[in-house]
Formats: sequence, C-alpha cells, structure tokens
Amino acid sequence: MSSIDEFALIRLLNGGKQSAALAQAAGVVTGIGDDAAVVEASPGSHWILTCDTMTEHIHFKQITMRDRDIGYKAMASAVSDIAAMGGVPRFALVALCMPGGTKVERVQAIYEGLYECASRYGVAVVGGDTTAILGELTLTVTVIGETGLGQAKLRSAAQIGDAVFATGYLGRSAAGLDFLLEQNLSSGQWGDFPEPIAPLVQAHCRPEPQIEAGQLLQRSGSCRALNDVSDGLASELWEIAEASGVGIDVMEERIPVADELAAFAQAQGKDPLDYILYGGEDYQLVGTVPAGDAVELQMRFKAAGLPLHVIGYVNAEGSGVRMVQTNGYIVPLGKKGYNHFSGADGKGGA
Amino acid sequence: MSSIDEFALIRLLNGGKQSAALAQAAGVVTGIGDDAAVVEASPGSHWILTCDTMTEHIHFKQITMRDRDIGYKAMASAVSDIAAMGGVPRFALVALCMPGGTKVERVQAIYEGLYECASRYGVAVVGGDTTAILGELTLTVTVIGETGLGQAKLRSAAQIGDAVFATGYLGRSAAGLDFLLEQNLSSGQWGDFPEPIAPLVQAHCRPEPQIEAGQLLQRSGSCRALNDVSDGLASELWEIAEASGVGIDVMEERIPVADELAAFAQAQGKDPLDYILYGGEDYQLVGTVPAGDAVELQMRFKAAGLPLHVIGYVNAEGSGVRMVQTNGYIVPLGKKGYNHFSGADGKGGA
Repeated sequence: MSSIDEFALIRLLNGGKQSAALAQAAGVVTGIGDDAAVVEASPGSHWILTCDTMTEHIHFKQITMRDRDIGYKAMASAVSDIAAMGGVPRFALVALCMPGGTKVERVQAIYEGLYECASRYGVAVVGGDTTAILGELTLTVTVIGETGLGQAKLRSAAQIGDAVFATGYLGRSAAGLDFLLEQNLSSGQWGDFPEPIAPLVQAHCRPEPQIEAGQLLQRSGSCRALNDVSDGLASELWEIAEASGVGIDVMEERIPVADELAAFAQAQGKDPLDYILYGGEDYQLVGTVPAGDAVELQMRFKAAGLPLHVIGYVNAEGSGVRMVQTNGYIVPLGKKGYNHFSGADGKGGA
Repeated sequence: MSSIDEFALIRLLNGGKQSAALAQAAGVVTGIGDDAAVVEASPGSHWILTCDTMTEHIHFKQITMRDRDIGYKAMASAVSDIAAMGGVPRFALVALCMPGGTKVERVQAIYEGLYECASRYGVAVVGGDTTAILGELTLTVTVIGETGLGQAKLRSAAQIGDAVFATGYLGRSAAGLDFLLEQNLSSGQWGDFPEPIAPLVQAHCRPEPQIEAGQLLQRSGSCRALNDVSDGLASELWEIAEASGVGIDVMEERIPVADELAAFAQAQGKDPLDYILYGGEDYQLVGTVPAGDAVELQMRFKAAGLPLHVIGYVNAEGSGVRMVQTNGYIVPLGKKGYNHFSGADGKGGA
C-alpha cells in the first residue's frame, strides 16, 4: 500500500459506488470526505456520524500510552470529529478486537478510559462488539452527534479574505510522543513527569476534544470552514484550502507556541514549528471566519475563558498553503511530514 | 480470555460505568445488551445503532470467503441487527484495518461487496476510517437505522403462551462453511458448485438480512420478542428465554430443514439439527407472537411471499430451552456448541 495515501485510497474505494438518488433518499447531507458525515435525522435535525480506529503499534505502543489512556484517546479522537463539525456528541459504539492472551485487567482499564472520556463529554456508550483477533489490540469508536439544520461546519466553506484561526496550542502532543519514545518506559515505570514534560505527555495521552469551542463557533454564526488537528497544522490547512479551492497564508509570528514546547524543542535541538506543523493529534480546531468578524469572535472566546488565535488569512492564490516567515520570506508549506500509510511510526493517522 | 464468554465480558466491561441520569439525558431508550441500541433521535423518532466486526482467520479465511463476499457479509451482519429490531437501515460507516502488503485490488473487491449489500438494502455508506494494522485484515461496520417510537423489537418481550417462530431455513450457512473448509480451495479455484452445495455456499457467503420480514413483524403489531440468528438457533432462543425470564420448548418436527441441508448432512453422516441448532450466521429472524395471532401473521407472510414457521412455544418452566423430540422425549438444549472466545475455529461470533 506504500504507493497510495489515505485520501486517494478513500476516493478509490468509495468513488462512484452509490447513486446520488440513494444518498438523497437515505437523507445524506454531507457524505464521505469531511471530518464526519452529516445526515437528516428527522425533519428539523441533522446528525453527525463518525468513526475512528486505533490499533497497537500503529497508533500507540505500550511505551507511549497506558491502557486507560488508550481508551480515553480512542473516544476523544472520535468525539473531536464531532467538535470539528460544531456538533454535540451524544452516543458511542465501541468495537474491540483482542489478541489471544489479552489480560482482562488490560481491557478493563481501556474501558475505564473510554467511559471516563465519554462521561466527561456527555456521551452515552450504547453498544459495540468484542471479538478475538490474530494481530494487535484494535479499537474502533463510532460517535453519533447532533447539530442544527444546516449548521454543520465543513472544510469546504473558507472564502477569500477570511481570517484563519486556531483554538489553542499545537505540537505539544507530538513533543510528548517524542519524549515517551525516547524514554522507553514500561507503563508501570511512569511517575509524575517534571516540567516542561508533564503537559506534553498529558497532551499526547489525554487530548481534549474542543466541543465547547466548536459550539461557540457554531453559535457565533460567523465561523465558515472548520477542521480538527489530527494530522498537524500544515495538513489540516491544506485540507481546508483544497476543499474550499482557496489559498492560505499562515503567519509564523502569529502561531502560538506553548512555553513547555519551546523549552522541550530547545533541549532537543529542534524547531517547535516542526512539531506544530507536522505533529498532529492535538485535537484543537482550526478554521476560518470573515476577517471583519474575527475580533468579535475572539471576545466571545475570551468571555468563555477560551483562547482563539488568528494565525493567517485566506488568499486568492490558487489552493496551496504558504508560511509568511518572521524574517519576511514567504515559503510554500508542504502538505504533511507524516502519512500513516507511508510508514508505521507510531504517530497515528486520521 | 478463555475463562470468560462474550456476554460476561460485556457485562464486566460496561457494568456500572455510566449513570442512569447521563443515559437518560442523552436519550438512550435501550442500551447495551440487545442486538442493537435504541436512542431518541428527536421527538417522534427512534434510531437504532449497531456495529459488527469481522476479522480474518477468526470470522473468515481466504478458503471460506472471496474478497467481495467478505465485504458483503460484513455489511449484511450489521444490517441484520437492524432487522432484528424491526427497523429500517439507513446509514453505514466502515472502518478497515489493512495489514502491510494488502493488495489494493483486494480492498477494492471488499468495498464492492460492502456497497453491493448496502445498495441492496438502501443503506448509504457515509464515512469510516482506513488504517494500517499489525495483524489480520479487519472490518468494523456501523449501521444506523430507524424505527417508530417504541417500536423496536427486543429480546426481552416474550410472554408465557407465545408461539415461537423462525423466518426461514437455518443451518445452511454452517453446512456451507463445513464444505468450504473441507475443500480447502483458494478463491481463484472457485467455480459453480453443484447441487446441493451451491445454496449452502451461498447461504454462508451471501447471507441476506431479513429486513422485509422484520418490517412485516413490526407492522403486524403482534410480534413480541425478536432476535437474528447469528450464533445458532439454540443460542438465540436462550437469549430470548433469559432476557424475557421465560422457558421455551422447541418442537423438533416443526423445525424446517432445507432439502440441500438434509442431503449434505446425510452425505457427511451428520444430523442436520447440529447445523441448525449450533451453526449460526444464517441471519434469519426468530421471535415470539401471542399464540392466537400466529395464524394471521403466517397469512400476512404468505401474502408477502415470505415463509414463517411456528417452531415452538413459550412456557412457564423457568428460563431454559428444551427440545420436544419427534420421538416424544423432552430434552434440555445446551446454550451453544460454539463460543468465539473459547476457540478461533472460523465460524464467527455475534
């Protein structure tokens, strides 16, 4: 599969397989291609459907996540897709595949994490499937959420002149992962990590889907495009640019850098931007808003105790992403540093 | 995991993890424990949520299913859970895990099968996830269906004096599987199988979820308990008996035996009842109806060109299942001959 990336594969597998008439009759509003699907639940209500898989050695290893974290993050990554549509998560199904010899205690800890995250976001776990597998432990979490009619936030809604925003710090999850891979600790050896490590490990193992920010964006009425950061800022901005047929300039000096990320990157001799642009799994939201509405939106966020950073602008320059560097140079930004079909390095996928 | 069966595991993992208040606030009508969950979509409408996993070497092997069949059956087994609630399937999400080196052609064939089944039952495939896996090819299909308020058919609704019915032939899928395992053909060697084999192989590889029968049962207003046959007749009747707190007597002479199953079993020196009671994956429906309504229900089925066989009665004898043999003896029926955690024999699970 090394010659094909995930999006091309999705197009290949799903393209032209069902008629538009069937999709319309079933009530599909937005099908394959965004963070989640949008369907008509009944007159007056739209539902959001999404699922995410995490499998051992591809998306996590025992040295990068404790069992309870695995469950928490599997639920969080699916809930985040609902946040990225501006919706409210309501129900979840959990499919678990267990290799022979899996300890019941391990599975119990994973489920405690799944439920901890679900309960935190008001999600009722209503079913699922459990089965044996010849292979590694694998979890697929399906989440069903709700949104108002026509209110779901798509990647494709950016317009020229929009401001581009991010709802919080990026790159911390990838830095936490780097630390954990380097330490090579078994989970029994984990203790309290010192600053600046603790918040980075927390960001990697316990990401928080931005449901409240997504709701605020939807209620504001001004948010246009929206995406969650699962694959790194560069990749998410490319998705918005391509889906909307626009270009995006991101301003290096406007990208917020967490102190702990700066300190860790410096100690590693790395540029924090590498983590931010290509790290992924932060589950913050990035999106666009008409430039004239950005300040008011920031004030709404401030009133709610949430950050909102304007980090760039939508331009008319085709459909690519560029970085306006602090030194004044404008450079094209590559799509991604990581594609989970081009090598299983443990950093995880969509 | 050999000391714990699937139902005990589900109870262990999910028991007491979320408050009744959260479930009620989210709109859960029926949670974990039936074929599928029932939730309130919006005032006036209930939705049915289910997911099913199929993984290579546990639920299928390359000698038992061609790639296109794998996709078809993965979709069919999830759609069948909607039939078992008397609902109409509407949307599906597909999560696919691919081992390294999986050929694109294989994945394409699987998706063609998934879509073939989805389109046949009016299900719109609206999303999913694709990822690499260290292990065998694994598919999780989530299906969302719809039903009227309070109309979902549960296992727990059987009452003393009800007639027990089945919507069609059972045991054919397991017989087809036996044949395929014995032949040990690679899929490229498959040709047209002669009678009586062809319908058995078809039953195993292309099971048809009984959506029309489920709808007919729901509309009749008389159907009480309902289940789909994924694990064999004995296991499904036990589920109804235990969930309803009743006993069930199944009459050997009333169980329909397909000619092809009788012929195959005879040639194998086996009793067709073994396939019927313990074979599984037929995806016919079994359920109960007040005895006085059974004839009218059979006439409705006949008018629709569908069979409905009365095969037994609900009794007040505790909560067990017994067989009234043709020779007049009454014997207790074991719960199952197969539990997919007690040994990976390729016959598949729930």
